[in-house]
Amino acid sequence: MNAEILATGDEIRTGALVDSNSAHIAEVLTMHGLEVTRHHAVGDNLNALTAILVEIAGRTDVAIVTGGLGPTRDDLTAEAMARAAGCELQLNDLAMETVTRFFRERKRTMNASNRKQAYLPQHAEVLDNPVGTAPGFVLKIDKCTFFCLPGVPYEMKKMLKDQVLPHVAALSGGVQNYCRVHTLSTFGFVESAVGEKLSGLETLFPDITVGLRAKFPEIQIKLYWKGSDEPRGMQTLEAGGAWVAEQMGDRLFSTGDQTMAAVVGDLLVARNASLAVAESCTGGLISNWLTNTPGSSNYFLMSAVTYANSAKMNILGVSADTLNSVGAVHEKTAEEMACGARRAAGADFGLATTGIAGPDGGTDEKPVGTVCIAVAGPEQTLSKRYLFAFGRRLMNKRIFAMAALDMLRRVLLNLPVL
Amino acid sequence: MNAEILATGDEIRTGALVDSNSAHIAEVLTMHGLEVTRHHAVGDNLNALTAILVEIAGRTDVAIVTGGLGPTRDDLTAEAMARAAGCELQLNDLAMETVTRFFRERKRTMNASNRKQAYLPQHAEVLDNPVGTAPGFVLKIDKCTFFCLPGVPYEMKKMLKDQVLPHVAALSGGVQNYCRVHTLSTFGFVESAVGEKLSGLETLFPDITVGLRAKFPEIQIKLYWKGSDEPRGMQTLEAGGAWVAEQMGDRLFSTGDQTMAAVVGDLLVARNASLAVAESCTGGLISNWLTNTPGSSNYFLMSAVTYANSAKMNILGVSADTLNSVGAVHEKTAEEMACGARRAAGADFGLATTGIAGPDGGTDEKPVGTVCIAVAGPEQTLSKRYLFAFGRRLMNKRIFAMAALDMLRRVLLNLPVL
Repeated sequence: MNAEILATGDEIRTGALVDSNSAHIAEVLTMHGLEVTRHHAVGDNLNALTAILVEIAGRTDVAIVTGGLGPTRDDLTAEAMARAAGCELQLNDLAMETVTRFFRERKRTMNASNRKQAYLPQHAEVLDNPVGTAPGFVLKIDKCTFFCLPGVPYEMKKMLKDQVLPHVAALSGGVQNYCRVHTLSTFGFVESAVGEKLSGLETLFPDITVGLRAKFPEIQIKLYWKGSDEPRGMQTLEAGGAWVAEQMGDRLFSTGDQTMAAVVGDLLVARNASLAVAESCTGGLISNWLTNTPGSSNYFLMSAVTYANSAKMNILGVSADTLNSVGAVHEKTAEEMACGARRAAGADFGLATTGIAGPDGGTDEKPVGTVCIAVAGPEQTLSKRYLFAFGRRLMNKRIFAMAALDMLRRVLLNLPVL
Repeated sequence: MNAEILATGDEIRTGALVDSNSAHIAEVLTMHGLEVTRHHAVGDNLNALTAILVEIAGRTDVAIVTGGLGPTRDDLTAEAMARAAGCELQLNDLAMETVTRFFRERKRTMNASNRKQAYLPQHAEVLDNPVGTAPGFVLKIDKCTFFCLPGVPYEMKKMLKDQVLPHVAALSGGVQNYCRVHTLSTFGFVESAVGEKLSGLETLFPDITVGLRAKFPEIQIKLYWKGSDEPRGMQTLEAGGAWVAEQMGDRLFSTGDQTMAAVVGDLLVARNASLAVAESCTGGLISNWLTNTPGSSNYFLMSAVTYANSAKMNILGVSADTLNSVGAVHEKTAEEMACGARRAAGADFGLATTGIAGPDGGTDEKPVGTVCIAVAGPEQTLSKRYLFAFGRRLMNKRIFAMAALDMLRRVLLNLPVL
């Protein structure tokens, strides 16, 4: 079955609000075997809304509409649906009960305007909203079954799961279709290089479609499989995933959608090792990423974000000689920082970054985008200088932090450092 | 002029990626007086893409298309545009030059697949992409002028501003309509409380419409004005903004869209003061936010992200007695951390957080969501305990970090601490 998604509301139309509902709905429908073909958004305008509903009604099997069910004048979904269906709005007793119950249970006074929420198109079937004031409804127009849900994400998600999905399963008449996805995460190739490395995939695995997703600076490879024989699908995806992993080599850091920081965390846990970080140009981003993972306190001891040279000396014991002779941005300084962090925290590994994130501070010798990264471990300390050409401060911080975590990952796995 | 927006890509169609590009484009076009009527999204499917382009071409004046300009096989925008226009793809010399230049300037090798990016529909006019490999293009089909831009947000935004807007202004033939917006940023009220405080606004200022935008944990208030008399509009917005500022009191932290970290940075610069941070539960997020602002090295000296108690003692000089008697999460510990960071870095101010971000580690006495924040300054040290009830680790980190920066802002401005 094909499905379309329609988000309504002037905030979305004018861009004051990013529509995240539609992505959620698309993901849920796709996982349940529906083919989502289009997303749309229109504003709080009766004619515009009616027109697009009529178009959708003639084109697809299932449509999910969000927003416009509230009590105010600019909530127009029920009226537009009635027009598109060529019927009238009428007071729906079940909807009225739902609205009344919401206010009674919360001991809140019901406004006159809330009564409006109980007027639904004739023949519409109420969808209960246990967590908000606006009931939803189902209505078939032409060949399409419309599910109208509130725009509040929490209410919408609950109703989608509890009421829309069983309804949709019934519509499909018992034929179960699945869509399964296998995600692999890489760092170190640009998108076009990943695309080229995967060029044989669709010949070898004709049942798999592939999508690349750039989550700067990593690139995720997503393998999709669709069909009714789920065990076969999972086997196919596993074989396809193994082939992709071979193409990507050590630039694959997760055969899932784990973050690089979580992967490094798992490697540290497996080795029963602890980590201390010394950050200059990454400004705390590495430790922010590391501590986004629950349980990171098991291996992450500290990060010293030493922006000032005095802090590099006082906290990390970087020598004044080094800073004077080679400067703050240098492999030697990075090594002293990594060793200093490791020593100060009594950690097994030290990881350090020092570089120039920009927009200012670059020189001919060390332009913006230069970063020196060092890893200090129980056996050896190594360091390397990189030049990334992304220009913007926030992008530089991200790729510096990612490159640093990747260097540590490579050391922990005895892989060559890039 | 009417405008529609089309996002392309299977990630968006299947919900793997939330489309934030369309909201940005809608906002920019609306600000420049265009009436955005519809947003759409379709996947990487030549027929689906061509069909919707043909529909749009017959309906609207201007369309912005994002995505599908990359080097891989699932990048189909140019081909679909050519089909919709009923013409052929051909090698565009200017586009080829753009692609070649990108690789030359970055001393990177150009892949064969990158050549594909230089094939554009006949009669298409190239839009230079100074920051990425994929050039965009303009093409008129039927009554509609299409602007095809890359899906990478940074590239898209730059090209929209520098190239699409001047083009659109020329299309409008000199009739200028404006939409102006005034943004104010607040922290400390929930959205419904902000809404209530502003309830008189639209009566007092009938030409202004107001929108609230939750950028957790801050809430931005956006005042919109539309019309042709721009100076009058600016005056109206200024008066409306002053009224809003009065309603919000000291919970307003920016009469613009500055981040809290940038506001604190400006206050430190104005006082010629420096800052050292000691973070536990915020895990580097405060220093990451502070260092996102260019020039932060002028006041930010260091952050010690001391997850382990040993690091709190060794780096910050927190006493073992304190940790043993009151524990890591306590006002007294926060104060010793703030003083320790200030002393270790020789900074004017110290700011510290220690708390429980979750999901584990909470107790009856100190549940998940508890945070102790301290500010140490030249004259005094103060601290406070808060309990936030958002539950999720990443949300807790954000609100803890925001509350800490807000406390420092209040100290720097001699405002009462919340």
